[in-house]
Amino acid sequence: MDLLKSINGPADLRKLPRMQLKPLADELRAFVLDSVSKTGGHLSSNLGTVELTIALHYVFNTPEDRIVWDVGHQTYPHKILTGRRDQMHTLRQLNGISGFPKRDESEYDTFGTAHSSTSISAALGMAMAAKTKGENRHSIAVIGDGAMTAGMAFEALNNAGVFHDVNLLVILNDNDMSISPPVGALNRYLARLMSGKFYAAAKNVGKQVLPAPMLELAKRFEEHAKGMVMPATMFEEFGFNYIGPIDGHDLDSLVPTLQNLKNLRGPQFLHVVTKKGQGYKLAEADPVLYHGPGKFNPAEGIKPAAASKMTYTQVFGDWLCDMAAKDDKLVGITPAMREGSGMVQFEQRFPDRYYDVGIAEQHAVTFAAGLACEGLKPVVAIYSTFLQRGYDQLIHDVALQNLDVTFALDRAGIVGADGATHAGNYDIAFMRCIPNMVVMAASDENECRHMLSTAYAFKGPAAVRYPRGAGIGAAVEKDLKTIPLGKGEIRREGKGIAILAFGTMLAPSLGAGESLDATVANMRFIKPLDVELVKQLAQTHDALVTVEEGCIMGGAGSAVSEALAEAGIVKPVLHLGLPDRFIDHGDAAHLLAGVGLDAKGIAASIRKRFDKGEPRLVVNNL
Amino acid sequence: MDLLKSINGPADLRKLPRMQLKPLADELRAFVLDSVSKTGGHLSSNLGTVELTIALHYVFNTPEDRIVWDVGHQTYPHKILTGRRDQMHTLRQLNGISGFPKRDESEYDTFGTAHSSTSISAALGMAMAAKTKGENRHSIAVIGDGAMTAGMAFEALNNAGVFHDVNLLVILNDNDMSISPPVGALNRYLARLMSGKFYAAAKNVGKQVLPAPMLELAKRFEEHAKGMVMPATMFEEFGFNYIGPIDGHDLDSLVPTLQNLKNLRGPQFLHVVTKKGQGYKLAEADPVLYHGPGKFNPAEGIKPAAASKMTYTQVFGDWLCDMAAKDDKLVGITPAMREGSGMVQFEQRFPDRYYDVGIAEQHAVTFAAGLACEGLKPVVAIYSTFLQRGYDQLIHDVALQNLDVTFALDRAGIVGADGATHAGNYDIAFMRCIPNMVVMAASDENECRHMLSTAYAFKGPAAVRYPRGAGIGAAVEKDLKTIPLGKGEIRREGKGIAILAFGTMLAPSLGAGESLDATVANMRFIKPLDVELVKQLAQTHDALVTVEEGCIMGGAGSAVSEALAEAGIVKPVLHLGLPDRFIDHGDAAHLLAGVGLDAKGIAASIRKRFDKGEPRLVVNNL
Repeated sequence: MDLLKSINGPADLRKLPRMQLKPLADELRAFVLDSVSKTGGHLSSNLGTVELTIALHYVFNTPEDRIVWDVGHQTYPHKILTGRRDQMHTLRQLNGISGFPKRDESEYDTFGTAHSSTSISAALGMAMAAKTKGENRHSIAVIGDGAMTAGMAFEALNNAGVFHDVNLLVILNDNDMSISPPVGALNRYLARLMSGKFYAAAKNVGKQVLPAPMLELAKRFEEHAKGMVMPATMFEEFGFNYIGPIDGHDLDSLVPTLQNLKNLRGPQFLHVVTKKGQGYKLAEADPVLYHGPGKFNPAEGIKPAAASKMTYTQVFGDWLCDMAAKDDKLVGITPAMREGSGMVQFEQRFPDRYYDVGIAEQHAVTFAAGLACEGLKPVVAIYSTFLQRGYDQLIHDVALQNLDVTFALDRAGIVGADGATHAGNYDIAFMRCIPNMVVMAASDENECRHMLSTAYAFKGPAAVRYPRGAGIGAAVEKDLKTIPLGKGEIRREGKGIAILAFGTMLAPSLGAGESLDATVANMRFIKPLDVELVKQLAQTHDALVTVEEGCIMGGAGSAVSEALAEAGIVKPVLHLGLPDRFIDHGDAAHLLAGVGLDAKGIAASIRKRFDKGEPRLVVNNL
Repeated sequence: MDLLKSINGPADLRKLPRMQLKPLADELRAFVLDSVSKTGGHLSSNLGTVELTIALHYVFNTPEDRIVWDVGHQTYPHKILTGRRDQMHTLRQLNGISGFPKRDESEYDTFGTAHSSTSISAALGMAMAAKTKGENRHSIAVIGDGAMTAGMAFEALNNAGVFHDVNLLVILNDNDMSISPPVGALNRYLARLMSGKFYAAAKNVGKQVLPAPMLELAKRFEEHAKGMVMPATMFEEFGFNYIGPIDGHDLDSLVPTLQNLKNLRGPQFLHVVTKKGQGYKLAEADPVLYHGPGKFNPAEGIKPAAASKMTYTQVFGDWLCDMAAKDDKLVGITPAMREGSGMVQFEQRFPDRYYDVGIAEQHAVTFAAGLACEGLKPVVAIYSTFLQRGYDQLIHDVALQNLDVTFALDRAGIVGADGATHAGNYDIAFMRCIPNMVVMAASDENECRHMLSTAYAFKGPAAVRYPRGAGIGAAVEKDLKTIPLGKGEIRREGKGIAILAFGTMLAPSLGAGESLDATVANMRFIKPLDVELVKQLAQTHDALVTVEEGCIMGGAGSAVSEALAEAGIVKPVLHLGLPDRFIDHGDAAHLLAGVGLDAKGIAASIRKRFDKGEPRLVVNNL
């Protein structure tokens, strides 16, 4: 690791002779593998970007030149080379460095990413700003072939292609070669572009240019490469100068090609082919398994985990298969999250009713609307944070037409290691304002299953939110029973204080209720809210406390306050939930405790406000 | 109009001999012109789709075959031919027919549209459902070249292209020929596709096929047309069978081509070229002016309107120019709404700082984020309803990174004739849950200007919402002064009841306050809320009433209740705002009165709840 240890920033890297880059890549790859095996995190994608990262920082004058890494989970080599090598052991942990680029973490992290397909828009913005300000810097977006399927990447290409003089380089990091069946027409197109001898020929061309990285030669290379291949690629139709594909693990192709590109004007498009998991045989063989592992021994590889508690994702996956077996109108839709959403088994058992639409949340929702128009019963499995991408479609295409679409909202609430970018904190607020919507929050695994059945049975748009990971370990019944629409339940009878718990907050609320001898209700429905239960609890208690794993602003607690106001009931209320700030990565349980959303914190908040159960009322003029 | 009168549905149309379609088109075009000149509405686009509509209903077996009209403002000919001829005089009026397709208005309106670029997703859903159910129906999306620039159209193409056996026809209605400078690389590409002799040649080919509409010939036609043009269009790269361009006003091209296409399997793409305003010289000459006119005399054309009250859009447009003149860091961004957002003058005066990014709200927001990263000051002008399309980008790219982007939210609240699809009812709820956001609502034109300056001066994401159309007629000052952040103001001192008015509801609240002798506050800020003012009003009044032109659920009123709860203040509250249902089209003032949001309605709601100012409290166990 001698070479790597000498690199404390890209300036050090740029002092190395070219021939040392390959040994550096070997060291960097070994470091990434060792580091991720100890902390967990993303592996396959980072092994795939080792050479590209070195080449970019070697050729371009970072941080003056801006690199925007799409999605950003492939930035560990970038972090290591930009002064964060010694912090890699804190990756994704509380107060440690983020698993994604983050503007306040490093000046080399020019744009925070995590949701996919934002890089071209951001880099174009930076490039146009440089032009406006008369600054001669490069702006570079590095985007994967998966991320390229999202509409916003297309919107950005469409916009960028018309600026003849913009200093923008889009690098397509195409690693589809080693992944499960490609999704969508674009990926199929890319596969054609890089198939067979075309790829080999292009590689050779890359090598020929090596000794003379001058503008004239660069142009000849470009024309040459084009002539050999196709008359025009799709990217050229968009106004980009397309070069590639080249081997993204071959520094002797990457470095001279990037050096040539530096001298070209206008929107440039470089197609780079890499292999996820490159250099670690086990990850190359199964890049999906090694996409985001926990800790493991690199020599032995990932061992099958001992049977642990069932995750909510598994509860959903099982429910989906069971309901599909019962009802042949069910179709399942995922925007590129087959594994994450627990749909592997569903795809295997019901391939004709399984749709992976690519990273395309907008389309996923409206496609579901179209299916629903014809009487099918679409179930859209989507992370809470990614439904933000399909928000207009949820309102305009589904809810407005009152179409029968079920939304299974995974990763609602605090998500832990992925941090603020992936937070499922806003869905309650942004969904409950939509007319016609039914919104439920599951308090345990079994209830999650029943809620999914309930949402599915409801003839209109309905969402069930559930958290990332395992629940409290409730036994999951096998039937497909539904629960009464808009009805909560009292789970503990107490005095003085009534705690109205939503979803995951039921368990800690019960704990708090025990210590305070408070009543605890499992509200189940955010919309329609169980207004009768709210009224009843208000009439029989001194104060109400709402608890939710979602933002307080506009959340379920606000729904309770609205219901009280609507009913003309005046009653002390305390809203507990997620505060009005972005919450960084860390262990989910720790983070929840940190914002007072464990049993102890809930009880403490109630005591603080109501003096151990006695409401301290500040009532004026009553 | 004898022919047209005989058509009470597509079945009647399909009985006509082919040679009568042309005279029918003439009658239909005259009817559209006459009808729109009397009601106002969309004109240019409807004159452009007369022949296409006739051909589609003539060739396809509607409503069994599904036509999804993208955006849907070009569906007047469709409405007239599908049994709604005699209702056209009620267009876009209260209880009249909608200006867009609407599922509950007609079985021929297979999918409600209005926001652009949803049609391919929806039609693909319908097509896959037909396949799943074994139904042999056609699904057809008709989408304009503008709508094709939005990311979700691309997402849908990417998904559709892989289904070899799907019965889907996408018709690109390309009318760019007569519109102001094309935006984006795609439009430039389409212009190349249809330029010069290619277009003429394709037209001739279309005519040759006329007598023999059989599969074999269709294929030959297709190959022929392709051979003449380009080796492969972008749409073929996506897996579609591309045919065209053909003349969309030539029924002798349209009908046989559609008949041929009916017999082809797999995803089909027909490129049709039409002219906005076709057949009405004035609209052909200025399709933008005749895009959505009010009433006018067809013989005379649209007359310059007498100077009327300034609209909020004009207030924004003037402010934008004034601020740009003062600060060269300002850049203005519109997602294809130059006219609608009042940016015509800005573009003329500051062309280098003007960005029309196409119908691409996602990109617009993240592009702004990229600009802001480099120290420029982007102002994104966007309708409230369209910000729903950029919601994730607002959270993930702008707010999370606390970037300095100003959002000018036009058409917030009730929008009138455009109806529920365009309602700006949700922005308060969906924005105020986002950390770091500043959200203001303008109560008059002058305050709007000051708020824009305030948002612009604020170093972070800030939005100013203002309504469609004219305000109360407040004189607009010329300076660029700001108002204190997070501070409201008391506008009327009264007793008992304090009305907390947000934005446009200030004027009717003052009216109500007058009749009730209530205090009235102009809250100005939704976020940060003026908590001190809320506390002060609570301490000095018997009850608080919040009034907003936005959904009650999660709205500004809820923010007030949250603040009271947070402060431990228990006080009767009444939330007035938009109810939890979608509100159809109609005159905005009427609609607002209909939901009790005029002075009379506000006063009545307060009286009803508080017995003419005396709070009737339902307080239990206090």
